[in-house]
Amino acid sequence: MPAPSPVSLDTFHAVIPAGGAGTRLWPLSRASRPKFLLDLDGSGRSLLQQTWDRLADLIPPERIHVVTGAAHAQAIGEQLPELTGLLVEPSPRDSMPAIGLAAAVIGASDPGAIIGSFAADHIIDDQVSFAEAIGQAVAVADTGLITTIGITPVGPSTAFGYIESGDQLTVDGAGSARAVTRFVEKPDATTAAAYVASGVHSWNGGMFVTRTDVLLTHLASLQPGLHAGLATIAGSWHTERRQQVLDEVWPSLTKIAIDHAIAEPVSLQGGMAVVPGAFDWNDVGDYAALHDIGGMSSSDTVWVDAEGLAIADDGTTIAVVGLRDVIVVRTSDALLVTTREHAQRVKEVVSELSSRGRADLV
Amino acid sequence: MPAPSPVSLDTFHAVIPAGGAGTRLWPLSRASRPKFLLDLDGSGRSLLQQTWDRLADLIPPERIHVVTGAAHAQAIGEQLPELTGLLVEPSPRDSMPAIGLAAAVIGASDPGAIIGSFAADHIIDDQVSFAEAIGQAVAVADTGLITTIGITPVGPSTAFGYIESGDQLTVDGAGSARAVTRFVEKPDATTAAAYVASGVHSWNGGMFVTRTDVLLTHLASLQPGLHAGLATIAGSWHTERRQQVLDEVWPSLTKIAIDHAIAEPVSLQGGMAVVPGAFDWNDVGDYAALHDIGGMSSSDTVWVDAEGLAIADDGTTIAVVGLRDVIVVRTSDALLVTTREHAQRVKEVVSELSSRGRADLV
Repeated sequence: MPAPSPVSLDTFHAVIPAGGAGTRLWPLSRASRPKFLLDLDGSGRSLLQQTWDRLADLIPPERIHVVTGAAHAQAIGEQLPELTGLLVEPSPRDSMPAIGLAAAVIGASDPGAIIGSFAADHIIDDQVSFAEAIGQAVAVADTGLITTIGITPVGPSTAFGYIESGDQLTVDGAGSARAVTRFVEKPDATTAAAYVASGVHSWNGGMFVTRTDVLLTHLASLQPGLHAGLATIAGSWHTERRQQVLDEVWPSLTKIAIDHAIAEPVSLQGGMAVVPGAFDWNDVGDYAALHDIGGMSSSDTVWVDAEGLAIADDGTTIAVVGLRDVIVVRTSDALLVTTREHAQRVKEVVSELSSRGRADLV
Repeated sequence: MPAPSPVSLDTFHAVIPAGGAGTRLWPLSRASRPKFLLDLDGSGRSLLQQTWDRLADLIPPERIHVVTGAAHAQAIGEQLPELTGLLVEPSPRDSMPAIGLAAAVIGASDPGAIIGSFAADHIIDDQVSFAEAIGQAVAVADTGLITTIGITPVGPSTAFGYIESGDQLTVDGAGSARAVTRFVEKPDATTAAAYVASGVHSWNGGMFVTRTDVLLTHLASLQPGLHAGLATIAGSWHTERRQQVLDEVWPSLTKIAIDHAIAEPVSLQGGMAVVPGAFDWNDVGDYAALHDIGGMSSSDTVWVDAEGLAIADDGTTIAVVGLRDVIVVRTSDALLVTTREHAQRVKEVVSELSSRGRADLV
């Protein structure tokens, strides 16, 4: 039996939705300097740049597209000098309008295109496994299934949604592909442990690969208003009326995540597939996740009977005495002290500061 | 029965030894900016200035003397413009040489003088009770007893030494005076509780009141070498040889606290008395003590499921999430995070920074 022929990525476009405030990473992450623009792991590259690097290793820059808000367009342009496909949203409408707009615009220029969406602020280690997963996903997507990359769990996390896989699929170049039975929300600890033991559950990292025509057909059926609005915008994209149409239509679009708009309902119709992603993956969702990946801890911190993550982005010396699993983050204008256990609650600080009118700090 | 006649303070001089690094209050307290120079309670006056104010309320400025090291002479002069009696030690030799020098110099000019020593870095609330205690102590000291002010305990503290009192004394103007049976070191918690319940134990706040001739006679007997050295220095004090003699003799003086040199042995000879100090007293020995007296907490701190003391002397905003009894202290060049329970161990940070050669931070 011959080895499966390598899958061509000639029709593959990547879409990077670059949004999200990252409020759980305050005070490093701010509205004006969100998580994806930060070098959180001390690699010398921001999370967005790392996402770009992974994709630029596989496809040419002109097939990598970023969707973002007007506030970040300039910073993204500076971080990604090779970027030509920047789609600027007039306002945040969640991931479905962002990815749908990219699908409509790319599909109009390249009708056979397959797009994959990749968050701008995740860390993936193991480029070989990543490329392997993309190859399989593109092969499956080419058959008309919307394909997600299911991340092989390294533990019973309660912080992520899970993908439940079913029957094996027979697709050339995608020997590990399975149908998706269903998507499940963030589970409790017992359920998470059962998922990991099952062998058929993987983490949902929000990576979807699909033919643009397949995505738009599902969208027309499931979210016809949103589909119509996106079609209107895409129709004017390469005209001088682009901005005017965007400004008129965009605010009326349904604000919804692609998971709810497409992935969940299409999985119930048998239209979703999953291929495994065996790479190390971290969504850097809070300081506990950042602690897990190391990086950026200030090297001159003094720990006395203490342990944790201590970051001083202004270069000052931090001393911690008698605290375990502590998180200390100092910037020139603010300071956070919390614990790994409370890392998810850091967003409450941002809410409180907002309610106090401290726009300078959020 | 007539009321006791008010005691005259006409012969009373106050001596303020201003030393000690205050390493448990790092990073606020530094070698170059020690605890006594800081306004730790947000009163607008440093601890030294508050000590001065308490005494200047009772006696004229020319009878208030400060003993300190050369490094702090200028800062003290700036904080206390009315100070005329500044005694500068060439090097730190603990409290006995400092107070002994003051006694020798003051006694030479004013043979009937009674001196009282008062730490530069404690907080006392209730001036009426303080004045009452001084009045009683001076009356007792005039009879030839070395007299200490025993602070009425407000709880079974293990952070202070205790004074055990014995028979009541009969001294005009000192109706509450008792003999001192003995001084005891910092006790364990059980012992401390027994002391407080006993009614005859008080806290040793290091306040000693004595005739200079009485102190020097005891010193001649108990520490003859130290006495001789101080006599030599005092003999040259008002000559042009002062600095030369100081520099020659001072380094040879025994380094010892007045508690060990005088208070403990003299109490065993029946030569010590105690009068009660019923005022609120705080030695601001660590951040737990500072937390107790309130003051200086940054008002814009965001507490989310958290409680403690948060100080940003650079005015930045602090947020604390999910920690109880936490201590957070931020300066422009350093940051400390600890807990009330570990407040005593902050000095270990200073040791560690010293061993790393970070003279800029200690």
